[in-house]
Amino acid sequence: MRILIVGASGTIGRAVGEALSPRHEVVRAGKTRGDHRVDIASRASIERLFAAVGPLDAVVSAAGEARFGPLEKLTDEDFELSLSSKLMGQVDLVRIGIARVRDAGSFTLTTGVLAGEPTPGSAAISLVNAGLEGFVRAAALELPREIRINAVSPPWIAETLAAMGREASAGLPASRVAAAYVESVEGHRTGEILDARRFG
Amino acid sequence: MRILIVGASGTIGRAVGEALSPRHEVVRAGKTRGDHRVDIASRASIERLFAAVGPLDAVVSAAGEARFGPLEKLTDEDFELSLSSKLMGQVDLVRIGIARVRDAGSFTLTTGVLAGEPTPGSAAISLVNAGLEGFVRAAALELPREIRINAVSPPWIAETLAAMGREASAGLPASRVAAAYVESVEGHRTGEILDARRFG
Repeated sequence: MRILIVGASGTIGRAVGEALSPRHEVVRAGKTRGDHRVDIASRASIERLFAAVGPLDAVVSAAGEARFGPLEKLTDEDFELSLSSKLMGQVDLVRIGIARVRDAGSFTLTTGVLAGEPTPGSAAISLVNAGLEGFVRAAALELPREIRINAVSPPWIAETLAAMGREASAGLPASRVAAAYVESVEGHRTGEILDARRFG
Repeated sequence: MRILIVGASGTIGRAVGEALSPRHEVVRAGKTRGDHRVDIASRASIERLFAAVGPLDAVVSAAGEARFGPLEKLTDEDFELSLSSKLMGQVDLVRIGIARVRDAGSFTLTTGVLAGEPTPGSAAISLVNAGLEGFVRAAALELPREIRINAVSPPWIAETLAAMGREASAGLPASRVAAAYVESVEGHRTGEILDARRFG
């Protein structure tokens, strides 16, 4: 398969690329690194990416920002950034990408456990992740030409915790999180939220 | 209690007002009718509403638009309207309203069954409803002064179906949907999504 990874130089994107590249042609895109540059908060940037990349069998997104912070401190801009980047950025990858994905291709987006397991400070992120999951379940009913769509829900990543100076063993290594993305790309699921703790 | 109903002249808002007014002081707001005018897609309009209304014990929102349509026909504007109105409009009622709600007061927002039970055409609405539910679960962990927050999830409303020329008996009468809002306002729940089919 020819697979585009958006957010390919992030902790998850890198691990997904390593897991898929032995069996597939992987094209890497990112905001600051990769074969192609894209800012998913910009529809024009997404259009340019797909035009440059050409036909694909799968699109994997491990991209998008959402802001963590106390509810009463989150600003209008924090919500706007979160909605335009991690939520609508990934939705627009699908809306614009449909025409570029071959028959029986797939989209795999990234949500996170805060969708259903919130914590103080997660109001904007929980909104974004849950909204993305609602979109994935609904879009799966309508994608044409047997195209599939799933979202992977990663827990805290061991490497991210380590980088924050916290206990890495409380998280899941990115290489194991990648297994859920591989299942979404190579398997037959659609409309599912894959809890990465149950794979790899 | 002194209760603000936003969207008070809609099918649900009217029924909630009728259910609450025998026991409480109800203040009604709406986009085109009511004691006060508000466009929840505008933060300035929400600010003006709360300043005009004064202190409250509860805020009930049965307001907000979201667009239904085939995924490949939904426009950027359809998503933007849905996100700014039903999703962020209700979120902003909470963010701005926190300072106006008395100790142990409450917010009750409106989601819908399409959050978790999508149908072809519901991609934008399912995103909005699921996102709102994610916000409610998270915000409940952080609201100050024992303020509570829930969302009511109505099914199709009998009166709405009748107005569309469809079979009203496939829906739930608004008067019965109102029971879930009453439970949210008068009860002790917080962080819950109240499926209106289980109340009234």
